[in-house]
Amino acid sequence: MKKIRAAIVGYGNIGRFTLDALLEAPDFEIAGIVRRSLDNQPAELAPYKVVTDIDELGQVDVAILATPTREVEKYAAEYLAKGINTVDSYDIHTSILELRNRLDKIAKANGTVAIISAGWDPGSDSIVRTLMEAAAPKGITYTNFGPGMSMGHSVCVRSKAGVKDALSMTIPLGTGIHRRMVYVELEPGADLAKVTADIKADPYFASDETHVMAVESVDAVKDMGHGVNMTRKGVSGSTQNQRFEFNMSINNPALTAQILVATARAAMRQAPGAYTMIEVPVIDLLPGNRDALIAHLV
Amino acid sequence: MKKIRAAIVGYGNIGRFTLDALLEAPDFEIAGIVRRSLDNQPAELAPYKVVTDIDELGQVDVAILATPTREVEKYAAEYLAKGINTVDSYDIHTSILELRNRLDKIAKANGTVAIISAGWDPGSDSIVRTLMEAAAPKGITYTNFGPGMSMGHSVCVRSKAGVKDALSMTIPLGTGIHRRMVYVELEPGADLAKVTADIKADPYFASDETHVMAVESVDAVKDMGHGVNMTRKGVSGSTQNQRFEFNMSINNPALTAQILVATARAAMRQAPGAYTMIEVPVIDLLPGNRDALIAHLV
Repeated sequence: MKKIRAAIVGYGNIGRFTLDALLEAPDFEIAGIVRRSLDNQPAELAPYKVVTDIDELGQVDVAILATPTREVEKYAAEYLAKGINTVDSYDIHTSILELRNRLDKIAKANGTVAIISAGWDPGSDSIVRTLMEAAAPKGITYTNFGPGMSMGHSVCVRSKAGVKDALSMTIPLGTGIHRRMVYVELEPGADLAKVTADIKADPYFASDETHVMAVESVDAVKDMGHGVNMTRKGVSGSTQNQRFEFNMSINNPALTAQILVATARAAMRQAPGAYTMIEVPVIDLLPGNRDALIAHLV
Repeated sequence: MKKIRAAIVGYGNIGRFTLDALLEAPDFEIAGIVRRSLDNQPAELAPYKVVTDIDELGQVDVAILATPTREVEKYAAEYLAKGINTVDSYDIHTSILELRNRLDKIAKANGTVAIISAGWDPGSDSIVRTLMEAAAPKGITYTNFGPGMSMGHSVCVRSKAGVKDALSMTIPLGTGIHRRMVYVELEPGADLAKVTADIKADPYFASDETHVMAVESVDAVKDMGHGVNMTRKGVSGSTQNQRFEFNMSINNPALTAQILVATARAAMRQAPGAYTMIEVPVIDLLPGNRDALIAHLV
């Protein structure tokens, strides 16, 4: 069986776990890793081609974009035009549709496939939300996140004056309402009251109950576990009170990377264009014989 | 917008709830109901065309097969060849693949679409099982059913000598193990010990812990609620102990019918062929504008 040649683009947390997931996948081979700089290579990358330009990797079937979310579009547009499929975990919910529609044009013009926003939320949670809505068309779905670290909120706090390092934990309070527990390592001389006021005034935190605490070491309280609890109570036909619930307790970057690898596989099986995960049949996420999967999973 | 013209084939429990779900769906119109006999029509069918032959209904886009599971293939093969899409909730897990592959040939030869085994298990549960396996490729998924009435087991008990009516409840004991609680209404003079021995010897019950009790009225203990608890503990990449759980507490025929209607809609959007639900993008289950669904659900 010809293996799928994948490139990892970016080598932060998600990139590292993507390498790990690719090594466990039976149907992939690693074309190499694309990084902004070749300085300071981690020892575990010694067996692989590490480059700054994807063209140096030879044939690449699919590029797994483990870049910051705001750089996804630039890389996706460039690679799709080169004839390389892309997957990413773009996570700005309000602009997913626009990104999909812009990449769709590029992908169709170049006979390539992009699957965007392929993580767990947006991503696998989106599939469960859609399925719950099909099962009970009228009703309310609540997505409750955590307890777990929010990358976006942590980055926001780190940008504040006087903050050396920060961790923002998301605590679920039910019905989609969340508390933010913010742990900050202050710069010498910084004032906690001033930092707290700055954080609470930021749009990222303004609408949530937020508590800010100083800690000696952010690293000492950091844990990459996360979770979700999604519920829907709704109506099938005219039958009320149908109840659905989905729960996860997971290592966040490990799950994101695993889903990126599954969607990289699925990208090889779609017609040219850009897709979100709810537009892709779930069977395409799995390796192996299709008939055997149907017999095993349906 | 042109509405999808659906026929309901069979008018038992699932057929009744299918009518109910179609009436609530914004994008369907009811072409009519196909029954084996026109005697004893329920009053609620007065507004509809009720026929014994689907040809009498004029244009039909999709036939929703609410027949006994063993009659699904006969009707599906006939209608697919006539140019009518079909959906069913065929539920004999071990022969789903073969049915799909036989209907696939007929559907492709006639430019039609069949979506088979579209209920909640097989059906929506199959999608969740597939998604869980994509998220954590190594690990074990347990599907725990109930508490709820098992149609197949109840029918089996009813076939035993001395049994007037019966209800077999499925009780989940965890890790996919179930207890069967069987409530029987005996014929005059029947011996409970003899009936119990007959039930326990049947292959339907032989491998499960089974308790048989006589009741005065089976109707008085019958409840169409059901439930499922699916769990997976597995490995993403090489990260152990990733945990996933899906729960439902639902009216069984109402959910089955709702999913049949959602897949009838999806059948209008697939290329010719036969599919199980894991082969169909979940977005196709929902009515309305695709861009709006992506913005709302991803």
